[in-house]
Amino acid sequence: MRTVPAAPLADGEYERVDAFWRAANYLAVGQLYLTANPLLRESLRAEHVKSRLLGHWGTVPGLTLVYSHLNRLIRLRDLDVLYVTGPGHGGPALQAATWLEGSYSEMYPAVSRDEDGMAALFGNFSSPGGMPSHTGPEVPGSINEGGELGYSLAHAYGAVFDAPERIAVCVIGDGEAETGPLATAWHGNKFLDPVHDGAVLPVLHLNGYKIANPTLLDRIGDEELSALLSGYGHAPYWVEGDAPEQVHRDLAGALDRAVDDIREIHRAARERGARSRPRWPMIVLRTPKGWTGPGELGGDPVEGTWRAHQIPLDAPAEDPERLELLERWMREYGPEELFDGRGRPRPVVTEAIPEGNRRMGAGSAANGGAAAALRLPDVREYAVELPRRGGGVGSPMAALGEYLRDVFSANERRRDFRIFCPDELDSNKLGAVHAATSRAWQAETDSVEAELAPGGRVMEMLSEHTLQGWLEGYLLTGRHGLFVSYEAFVHIVDSMFNQFAKWLKVSGELSWRGAVPSLTYLLSSHVWQQDHNGFSHQDPGFLDHVTHKKPELVRVHLPPDANTLLCVVDSCLRGENGINVVVSGKQSQPNWLAMDEARRHVVRGIGMWDWAGTAAGEPDVVLACAGDVPTRETLAAVDLLRHRLPRVGVRVVNVIDLLRLQGGRENPRGIPDAEFESLFTTDKPVVFVYHGYPWLIHRLTHGRPNRNLHVRGYREEGATTTPFDMAVRNGIDRYALVVDVIDHVAGLGEVAAETRQAMIDKRTEHDLHTREHGRDLPEVAEWTWQGPGSGERSR
Amino acid sequence: MRTVPAAPLADGEYERVDAFWRAANYLAVGQLYLTANPLLRESLRAEHVKSRLLGHWGTVPGLTLVYSHLNRLIRLRDLDVLYVTGPGHGGPALQAATWLEGSYSEMYPAVSRDEDGMAALFGNFSSPGGMPSHTGPEVPGSINEGGELGYSLAHAYGAVFDAPERIAVCVIGDGEAETGPLATAWHGNKFLDPVHDGAVLPVLHLNGYKIANPTLLDRIGDEELSALLSGYGHAPYWVEGDAPEQVHRDLAGALDRAVDDIREIHRAARERGARSRPRWPMIVLRTPKGWTGPGELGGDPVEGTWRAHQIPLDAPAEDPERLELLERWMREYGPEELFDGRGRPRPVVTEAIPEGNRRMGAGSAANGGAAAALRLPDVREYAVELPRRGGGVGSPMAALGEYLRDVFSANERRRDFRIFCPDELDSNKLGAVHAATSRAWQAETDSVEAELAPGGRVMEMLSEHTLQGWLEGYLLTGRHGLFVSYEAFVHIVDSMFNQFAKWLKVSGELSWRGAVPSLTYLLSSHVWQQDHNGFSHQDPGFLDHVTHKKPELVRVHLPPDANTLLCVVDSCLRGENGINVVVSGKQSQPNWLAMDEARRHVVRGIGMWDWAGTAAGEPDVVLACAGDVPTRETLAAVDLLRHRLPRVGVRVVNVIDLLRLQGGRENPRGIPDAEFESLFTTDKPVVFVYHGYPWLIHRLTHGRPNRNLHVRGYREEGATTTPFDMAVRNGIDRYALVVDVIDHVAGLGEVAAETRQAMIDKRTEHDLHTREHGRDLPEVAEWTWQGPGSGERSR
Repeated sequence: MRTVPAAPLADGEYERVDAFWRAANYLAVGQLYLTANPLLRESLRAEHVKSRLLGHWGTVPGLTLVYSHLNRLIRLRDLDVLYVTGPGHGGPALQAATWLEGSYSEMYPAVSRDEDGMAALFGNFSSPGGMPSHTGPEVPGSINEGGELGYSLAHAYGAVFDAPERIAVCVIGDGEAETGPLATAWHGNKFLDPVHDGAVLPVLHLNGYKIANPTLLDRIGDEELSALLSGYGHAPYWVEGDAPEQVHRDLAGALDRAVDDIREIHRAARERGARSRPRWPMIVLRTPKGWTGPGELGGDPVEGTWRAHQIPLDAPAEDPERLELLERWMREYGPEELFDGRGRPRPVVTEAIPEGNRRMGAGSAANGGAAAALRLPDVREYAVELPRRGGGVGSPMAALGEYLRDVFSANERRRDFRIFCPDELDSNKLGAVHAATSRAWQAETDSVEAELAPGGRVMEMLSEHTLQGWLEGYLLTGRHGLFVSYEAFVHIVDSMFNQFAKWLKVSGELSWRGAVPSLTYLLSSHVWQQDHNGFSHQDPGFLDHVTHKKPELVRVHLPPDANTLLCVVDSCLRGENGINVVVSGKQSQPNWLAMDEARRHVVRGIGMWDWAGTAAGEPDVVLACAGDVPTRETLAAVDLLRHRLPRVGVRVVNVIDLLRLQGGRENPRGIPDAEFESLFTTDKPVVFVYHGYPWLIHRLTHGRPNRNLHVRGYREEGATTTPFDMAVRNGIDRYALVVDVIDHVAGLGEVAAETRQAMIDKRTEHDLHTREHGRDLPEVAEWTWQGPGSGERSR
Repeated sequence: MRTVPAAPLADGEYERVDAFWRAANYLAVGQLYLTANPLLRESLRAEHVKSRLLGHWGTVPGLTLVYSHLNRLIRLRDLDVLYVTGPGHGGPALQAATWLEGSYSEMYPAVSRDEDGMAALFGNFSSPGGMPSHTGPEVPGSINEGGELGYSLAHAYGAVFDAPERIAVCVIGDGEAETGPLATAWHGNKFLDPVHDGAVLPVLHLNGYKIANPTLLDRIGDEELSALLSGYGHAPYWVEGDAPEQVHRDLAGALDRAVDDIREIHRAARERGARSRPRWPMIVLRTPKGWTGPGELGGDPVEGTWRAHQIPLDAPAEDPERLELLERWMREYGPEELFDGRGRPRPVVTEAIPEGNRRMGAGSAANGGAAAALRLPDVREYAVELPRRGGGVGSPMAALGEYLRDVFSANERRRDFRIFCPDELDSNKLGAVHAATSRAWQAETDSVEAELAPGGRVMEMLSEHTLQGWLEGYLLTGRHGLFVSYEAFVHIVDSMFNQFAKWLKVSGELSWRGAVPSLTYLLSSHVWQQDHNGFSHQDPGFLDHVTHKKPELVRVHLPPDANTLLCVVDSCLRGENGINVVVSGKQSQPNWLAMDEARRHVVRGIGMWDWAGTAAGEPDVVLACAGDVPTRETLAAVDLLRHRLPRVGVRVVNVIDLLRLQGGRENPRGIPDAEFESLFTTDKPVVFVYHGYPWLIHRLTHGRPNRNLHVRGYREEGATTTPFDMAVRNGIDRYALVVDVIDHVAGLGEVAAETRQAMIDKRTEHDLHTREHGRDLPEVAEWTWQGPGSGERSR
């Protein structure tokens, strides 16, 4: 345990720090309780108290304490500090602090920094149509919601990558510290480059309790906790106490030292070329839960216990004694010393506050709008040649790798693009990027590891949670990035996606929040291309998950080949305020569209492939496909139909931007019904082969003109097997599709019945052959598109 | 760093341990490469090699090493050891080891323990229709899939809770150790009661690399790692090396000491009443990745690097030099010393193996079928009285708490029931259980914390991942449990749910795996009842997520009141091999059914509420509801309709077992079409008010007779507001429902138009009132059911 000498606070410093803290605490209590009489001009009466008491007090005094001290530090040293509030349920703390510093009123002019504004601040808090009880997007300066705990520290790292002068001070609740995502986020310090990146200063706030239980880290003893934090690579300073004056002086001293350490680490790396991984400072702050609140109630201790977590003093409006307690509690902060007669903070409070954008609620990096557009190379230069339809076989991901390599190069100087990937970059065949950048790595290396470097901008750690958190922090502070993952395992961050989508929805409704670059998931090693990994690696449900959110926010892209993949990713990297999901196989596969066709197809998002169909006008059947393997099987089925049932008129429709299928009021981005009709007809059978679970297509096309829709997709039949066998097990294979067509097109007669049986026999033959030889039938393995454009016949 | 004196291995012990290890490694390589010639009777030819090389080698030698040493330990000390394979992608290791010990052949008689069986073992591995490349349910003795990394350590703890003699040895990969779930699972030792629980012996296997990157824990230096593990509460023994003899002796010594330590900890607690939290032993094992495999290839090092992760020697069939390398590699294990002329393991190998059920692949706890039915109190004794329909208002969760309290009591002696909850038990109003059991807690306590105790069986840690992992381990080893969570945050374990559902699907197809008690999620604080927490706490999508899995595995229950909740949970606790999701509000709400009605309703899962409807025969409209708040709003709408439009014949259908809506081949548990018709009619408008996202109802009823279906549910309009305002924002409120009825029932005329406008006015009035007063309109707040059974009129 490393404690530090208390800071010899200069003249008035102690008073200012303490005054800001008391003022913020006062305003926090006011938000929790009051609907009127904000300055306590008269004795509290029941009607001054809110009818619903909703919010969390316990963590507030710790959050305001740190905020107040950071103000001092920023003023003293002109620092760029971003405040990340792990216990984000302590929303009143941040709303109080930003109101005091004025940033709140700048964002919400109706809530002025005076008595009326104070009343509005109180009234809005946690009320219908008002401000949330958490540090959501509505709170100036926040990049962390903190309702679902665990992501603060990863957010903090994301915010300081490539921001060399920024310090993210991250208050970590001891409850939050128990979550898995937080427990591994500490390792972020092995990825922080002291030359190009800023610093994270974690403040582990031990207040001892969660909702109803003690916290682990508060109860493992100082020795074990000290070992743990040191094992995480930190050199902690400890500050403990419940006497304000002592805590103020100790905390000021610890923060001074921590910033000295950070400065020294930066200097060593930047000026003296130090290469060894530093032991970054951090602070352990142990203060009582609900500090300065009611000490006890009805004989039960409150301050310092879990009883202070939410509303420590319940139902004051119904009990005069409690009402008096509340009033006494608030008066103890000395409101008349803190606010003038018009409710404005007095100089002792305002003098503690930094200037302009140095104020933590006003820092532009946290409030959006800080991003510059990425410089993107011309995607046409990466075009995969198309010697013939179905030719130019190769890995789409490998082709994309070359484009991404040059995205890194083009933005090398500005350093505002990173890829985040759980050790799957090479496995997902994006290895080409190594030519332009390394993997970030600050820990020990070995001579065989050439692609690791402190300044690398590929972030690979085996924690999807950390990666997602980093990327969110990076985007929200105005930079660009990609999350690359195996499709099945991206479910690990389902709930982080939820929270981020909620963030974007709300922040999009706030005029003062600027745009942020979109978050793009690039999913490969998908459900249809699992060789050795089998069932546990097969799950396309993330597409269902993301489409729960509003279609304004989410785009789902299923590029069928390399050129479409290139165009899709190019467009995703230009996006703002949204979430993209791109699914692409990494194995070799045929190409279908030349680059100019691909560009048009990606812009439209959905289109007829005239060259592939056999129907001149109105078709007998529409074969629709979305996804690379579905497209391949669809075209193979068209080949079979052309050969065996040449009189069946087939139309091929390929869907790349999945949500364009959805129409109506629900989705303004959907194609109009007329276009839907022109693609899918009004009544012809549509056999739709889809990458994921079939019902998503039913849902998206709900209410569309043509109800004669038959969707094939993944039906949870997974195994360790060949990719084509996966198609067979789930009934999306070419043979099954031909059967489908025959079953749904009326009046095909005898020949069709024979073909139908032949297809069923093929499936049996496949089954036996695969089991015996461990590989696909030669005619499947060697299949190439025989139709128009294949080079074997002219178009 | 604590190393230990090497064990003085007794006569022949060293040879046996080494022989088993070599034999297992040989068999693992055979699984990866060979399709014939398993004993290398002749020189390897290209046709002996598999056409697709799929699997992971790198982690195998470490897994076989530990397995071999545990065999020794089990024999020596007659231990009950469960082997948990964190790097479960090393499937060949476990399949080799269990084949050697015979358990594999007992489960799969076609794969005999001789040359033919060896050939089958090799051929089956990672082949279509064969065995997976991971330690899935197909692998005897496994309770951890290990494809999606991170859950091994939590599984291990779950397996030893309430199993005082069991030791779960958990090999943790250094890649896996980077995941969030694993990083916090270490804290399991603060919940382990040395009196009633067994022990977990973590073996952190540092082989230095993941797929393509080094691992963090291997590269933070021994001092930092040592601090970290000590901070996690462990006293590690370190074993390092690449010389087999030295590593064998050191590992034997470390395991001897670790088991001594565990025994001593158990004795101290059980015989001498020691109360302080012990520092549990663990082992740090540092050996090369792909140890004993190819040292280098084409000048690049392989052994000891990431290149050994999957197939270290690629394409041997196409390159005679590589083929020779492969043969040399395999021959170095000395197959002729290990297997006799018929391919059976020689005595030097078999003598290393424990007897019967002590074999780790044969331990019944890991292979299902170990559970005894839970003793359940008669649910009728917990009935909530129903003075009138809509009366007996109270929290359903609180009523359930009393029942669960007595479930604990009834199984007190057998100790095979636990509740797992992320510090939300009290918040979810299940506090009554504290009367029967405490919260498990081994860390420091304070005088105010009366409900914590080492032997407690409520498991509260702020990590959904850890809880889910514990519960899975607990269930898979034959015990019972409940996962209680806020509805929105259960998404945190989406991917763990996926993997567990996959486990159950596959294990259900294996005749030798016995049944395991079902996993039940009890979700409260749901989307419609979020007071202060707001948007981040509002997400009903877990129901969509779980229904991606086959309906044979999953049940979704939406009890509308307390008595139905009691009956539902009672039935869930009797279930086997499935996953239940129960959603229930925790706030006070009306009750609708008396206990005997509730029991019938729960068994049927869906039913008409004659008492609530106004139609005698065929109705004009069906109002269907699923969920507690939807039921309340539906009945409130019926009240309004009865009053304002008495001539509209309304039928009320309540759905409690959601998947019974789904019919056809997809779901054998669905109600027949005829029953669907008799409930919903064939063509009358159905206004269906559903707890979650509306499209799930469309999906489930796809293909059902009546397509005149209008679903209302959550449409992602969340906020910090009153529960009723949530209903209004999402259009499931009573007023909106009346409008819906009017819009869909034809020919209602003038009065209806007036009522329609009145309803719209009510919604506006509500909006203004809520914003102004922060609470609901009095007529909403005070609404009680006025219809039949309300006591105001006879039935």
